[in-house]
Amino acid sequence: MTDAVSLIKLKRDNDRPLTEEEIGWLFAAYAAGEVADEQMAALLMAVYFNGLCAAELRAWTGQMIASGERLDLSRLGRPSVDKHSTGGVGDKVSLILAPLVASCGAVVPQLSGRGLGHTGGTLDKLESIPGWRAGLSNEELVAVLGRVGAVIAAAGAGLAPADRRLYALRDVTGTVESIPLIASSIMSKKIAEGTRALVLDVKTGSGAFMRQRDRAVQLARTMVALGTEHGVRTRAVVTRMDAPLGRAVGNAVEVAESVDALRGAGPADLMEVTYALARAMLELAGIDADPRQAISSGRALDTYHAMIRAQGGDPDAPLPEARHRREVLAAPASGWLTRLDALAVGVAAWRLGAGRARKEDAVSPTAGVLCLAKPGEYVRAGQCILELRADDPARFAPAMEALDADVLTIGSAPPPEVPLVLDDVGA
Amino acid sequence: MTDAVSLIKLKRDNDRPLTEEEIGWLFAAYAAGEVADEQMAALLMAVYFNGLCAAELRAWTGQMIASGERLDLSRLGRPSVDKHSTGGVGDKVSLILAPLVASCGAVVPQLSGRGLGHTGGTLDKLESIPGWRAGLSNEELVAVLGRVGAVIAAAGAGLAPADRRLYALRDVTGTVESIPLIASSIMSKKIAEGTRALVLDVKTGSGAFMRQRDRAVQLARTMVALGTEHGVRTRAVVTRMDAPLGRAVGNAVEVAESVDALRGAGPADLMEVTYALARAMLELAGIDADPRQAISSGRALDTYHAMIRAQGGDPDAPLPEARHRREVLAAPASGWLTRLDALAVGVAAWRLGAGRARKEDAVSPTAGVLCLAKPGEYVRAGQCILELRADDPARFAPAMEALDADVLTIGSAPPPEVPLVLDDVGA
Repeated sequence: MTDAVSLIKLKRDNDRPLTEEEIGWLFAAYAAGEVADEQMAALLMAVYFNGLCAAELRAWTGQMIASGERLDLSRLGRPSVDKHSTGGVGDKVSLILAPLVASCGAVVPQLSGRGLGHTGGTLDKLESIPGWRAGLSNEELVAVLGRVGAVIAAAGAGLAPADRRLYALRDVTGTVESIPLIASSIMSKKIAEGTRALVLDVKTGSGAFMRQRDRAVQLARTMVALGTEHGVRTRAVVTRMDAPLGRAVGNAVEVAESVDALRGAGPADLMEVTYALARAMLELAGIDADPRQAISSGRALDTYHAMIRAQGGDPDAPLPEARHRREVLAAPASGWLTRLDALAVGVAAWRLGAGRARKEDAVSPTAGVLCLAKPGEYVRAGQCILELRADDPARFAPAMEALDADVLTIGSAPPPEVPLVLDDVGA
Repeated sequence: MTDAVSLIKLKRDNDRPLTEEEIGWLFAAYAAGEVADEQMAALLMAVYFNGLCAAELRAWTGQMIASGERLDLSRLGRPSVDKHSTGGVGDKVSLILAPLVASCGAVVPQLSGRGLGHTGGTLDKLESIPGWRAGLSNEELVAVLGRVGAVIAAAGAGLAPADRRLYALRDVTGTVESIPLIASSIMSKKIAEGTRALVLDVKTGSGAFMRQRDRAVQLARTMVALGTEHGVRTRAVVTRMDAPLGRAVGNAVEVAESVDALRGAGPADLMEVTYALARAMLELAGIDADPRQAISSGRALDTYHAMIRAQGGDPDAPLPEARHRREVLAAPASGWLTRLDALAVGVAAWRLGAGRARKEDAVSPTAGVLCLAKPGEYVRAGQCILELRADDPARFAPAMEALDADVLTIGSAPPPEVPLVLDDVGA
């Protein structure tokens, strides 16, 4: 027997790791209301400062998984593999990757959350497609996976409910930015969804939550270890998120760009990350296939159409378009665009209505930003770099405020070509 | 305008001190229910790790004072001076000191809390006197002060109510042991009670909350600075709390020893601390008087009798006595007792019923421990060092468990004489 204050003090003073029994007691008592939110908040802040060792993290994550149901995809008879991104600006990779990898013979059970802050959410993007709905029962989910091979849907309330409650608490208590807490939150949901393999895209740079590369690598290693310990073949790539990925940042605009990519007309940076992740996923799934061929053959696009239709969406219907467009951010000189700050562009899109400030807010399907030029391209003095889109023109002014002079850099030579994939963990 | 999460993150990341405005917003929003307990708990834990700078602490304490009423004792026309102890085993100094200093011409408005843990509470001790009650209205309090000069009473709900709420939160969230939070909690109540001068007895050693002397000195300095900033002449002494103070540890037994002390028959260590604090209080109050003379003349005892009667107590009534006594802790060898661990004795008394584990518990007036020998005295092999007292003999076994072989040390020579007052801060 223990009590909340003893556990808080143990973690606060870093005397010794909490035992598996103590962590089990903590989650049971929290679920039963015997440990109060204020006690859990104090413990989370102590974890923020003193971390969790590998054994603590394994037990902590195990409790989050055990708090709910764990899907069983084994009866589908095909290798399952999923992907998770820690979130970036213009990161629509999931929309392309899920049907692409499924079209090669895997099942991809991509259960996602909503976007919060300056990075968009995959579900928000797909909801700009007329008729498409994010919510599926577990039975529907498994049925779609069996029929189509890929599903992108909202994680049901039955998966890792302890994480749901803890995340809501972390969100209001300044305890989100903790590597072990982030790792256990992501991994508990992914492990509970039943995938047998998982590729993680850990973003680093100005537009990412993990700005520093060493912290991103640490998060990647922590998640790979956690997945492996729980029997999920896990690999992580750390990718650069200094500039928006692709040209479109928003909801409908990102869906449109994803469809272009599935048609073989995707921007180079987007495809570089997509193919790197696709290769890693196929390798973990034990499938020998060329992701480029899945695109060029049209198979990936077919699977995408089937996936959208399976959730009520009409992939042929025109996507909604914003009522107002405005070209902004004139290049101060002619030269090569060497930098376009992802965070500023992400915040501008967010303020235009593409993202939400609080989780109960609705997002605008049409709002967003198009990058008229991308780093590496030559621009002429006075040429506008961005196009803002919104239904409500009053949104332009606050969006513009995010775009100060420091958003871009013009150089006298093209920037050096640097790969987007920085590190490969667990390969 | 700010919000709770921003303030938590500022403190968590130690980016810059919180401003006076931000701290003002925090307390107002917490009082209004806009900042939730879990957010305050996370902030308190961040304060535990990153501290509060002098300006933050001044503003924080100022908010706690401003949350309630502040008594005005100026109309009494005599210098006011109070004393606070951070708590020790057998620390009955307040019972002697308040009437002693009042008998020299000061007013001593001693508003106290209850004991919690292994150190006793002054109110719990006095409540063993038949008829005595701790609760007084502000009007009664000022009237008794005017008539008697000294009052020891429960702090009213109107004094620093924000501290009351914060302390309850700290108690359940493992955030008690923070020097700035301890300092602001103590000082907000003392400043609000209206005293113009204050002497603090900061205990250090095995039986104190601040075991390390450097931490005790730091707490002393922090409180002296806070008092001075708020216009209260403040001084602190750091005193040793390695062995129980005096021979009696409990409630009625400590009252009896205090009356002995007021009659001039107090044990040397108790009187050493009492006189040191009395001299400091009289000096701060600007009163030129000899505390020894206040005792030898009987004036201090007269004032004590008046103080007890003013709160309904009968100082002539016999004190309650425990139904069961047991002599324990036989000396393993003959020699000088060089060490008697204060914490172990305090825990034993607590388990006998003298203290409470939770604030809603009642305490036993009769339970306690008497030290039959004290460090510096010669003991014979087999001689019992402690006498345990309880109404319920089932309490003896758990109390005995606190008294293992390491409770005492027998030496071949008397221990060196070391003064109890280690440091004098703000003199």
